[in-house]
Amino acid sequence: MFDNVPQTLEMLRSKGKQLVFVTNNSTKSRADYKKKFDKLGIPANVDEVFGSSYSAAVYIARILKLPGPKNKVFVLGESGIEQELESEGVPYCGGTDPSLRRDMEQEDFTNIANGSMLDPDVGIVLSGLDYHMNYLKTSIAFQYIQRGAMHLATNIDSTLPQAHSFFPGAGASSAALVKAVGKGEPTSFGKPSQAMMDAIEGKFQFDRSRTCMIGDRLNTDIQFGIDGKLGGTLAVLTGVSKKEEFLADGAKTVPTAYVDALSDLLG
Amino acid sequence: MFDNVPQTLEMLRSKGKQLVFVTNNSTKSRADYKKKFDKLGIPANVDEVFGSSYSAAVYIARILKLPGPKNKVFVLGESGIEQELESEGVPYCGGTDPSLRRDMEQEDFTNIANGSMLDPDVGIVLSGLDYHMNYLKTSIAFQYIQRGAMHLATNIDSTLPQAHSFFPGAGASSAALVKAVGKGEPTSFGKPSQAMMDAIEGKFQFDRSRTCMIGDRLNTDIQFGIDGKLGGTLAVLTGVSKKEEFLADGAKTVPTAYVDALSDLLG
Repeated sequence: MFDNVPQTLEMLRSKGKQLVFVTNNSTKSRADYKKKFDKLGIPANVDEVFGSSYSAAVYIARILKLPGPKNKVFVLGESGIEQELESEGVPYCGGTDPSLRRDMEQEDFTNIANGSMLDPDVGIVLSGLDYHMNYLKTSIAFQYIQRGAMHLATNIDSTLPQAHSFFPGAGASSAALVKAVGKGEPTSFGKPSQAMMDAIEGKFQFDRSRTCMIGDRLNTDIQFGIDGKLGGTLAVLTGVSKKEEFLADGAKTVPTAYVDALSDLLG
Repeated sequence: MFDNVPQTLEMLRSKGKQLVFVTNNSTKSRADYKKKFDKLGIPANVDEVFGSSYSAAVYIARILKLPGPKNKVFVLGESGIEQELESEGVPYCGGTDPSLRRDMEQEDFTNIANGSMLDPDVGIVLSGLDYHMNYLKTSIAFQYIQRGAMHLATNIDSTLPQAHSFFPGAGASSAALVKAVGKGEPTSFGKPSQAMMDAIEGKFQFDRSRTCMIGDRLNTDIQFGIDGKLGGTLAVLTGVSKKEEFLADGAKTVPTAYVDALSDLLG
């Protein structure tokens, strides 16, 4: 499936194209992705990787800039979010804290309700894909929001492609919180959110009309490029979406072009 | 708050009124509720208790009647659901199974995707309030639904009143599954669903026009009585809803009458 991808990327680089890898997966940091790329033999630099966790951390640190000490983030998610918050100097709690990876006990109801289990500095709840989602963390996050904290999400993808099938995505693992709060989806930073595009542009200063978004998922990747008014979008059929979806009459999201595999670009 | 409630119920019984206790809480069975009532000194029989778990079990066993062996239920919830399915002779798995109360491991992705961790007899996923919700059980439930299982819910309350505050309700603990599936809320049996009213009527044959629904929550209890065209609805202000909500202009759900406490009925 990824045959000749390294060669294809080398070819693009040799023609002077700048590459940016954009991922909604919040469980890994940019550094984690660099390691993964190394393992797959794909040449990439940390700076070329843009993840939804990084995008959220940049937004919180550089745009939101909540006044301290109310700028602490309660994390519903994995270490990728924590690493990116750290890289931007944002204080956080929750996340992978082992003391919260446990069953809800009877006294937790009381201690969450009366605030004694809560950190008074928390002003933001940031949710992403959490393989360790549980009732305890959701209850704590819910209480923070009831007390005025803002809810942000790295991304709200309903599903996650894994093992040639689908599993609950970040939007699913934080859906308990969203349902309890009852105010609809939170602001999110994953594709197709243009908050991600703005963050990338803030870093790379590229010409949108001369940029092509390449991806395998219509409702995230391709929509992201269309909404961002990029020069073009290229669907690659090695992943989630099938060509029948965008070739259908009345298809909502239609790429400029498509290839069966990325290496088709080698010609 | 519950002062004189036993006396009030005795008074109603002495006037020949039939009492039915209707609860959306799926974590307890009717037998569990009987025990709770005994502890609170509230006189009640098991047969007078109608819970959303029982209502769902009756629906599955007596109305849906899926042909075996595809009639097994995968439970996302606590023992109350299991007990009521058992009382109706419905086979089930999941639920409080300790082997599913653990973190998702890498091989689980493969074994769920290829079906080797799935029970081929499961034709229904039944979700209720699950204090032990996790990524593993949600992934399994999601896979069952992708393979054609029906999704039913005991109830979809967004929140649960506890410890003088609010916590995620059944609708929240199953929201990850609902979001991943992407088809909206499942059929549910809690108030205000009229599936619950039909189940009660099937058992008690009462005259709706001479029946009063008493409850503390407008969007469940009172709406249930209104939608069921009962003779009247009585809001009790010792719980969730405040009178400002139904006295407001344009209030959506307005009870026939209200009392500050149930014991006001003693006169």
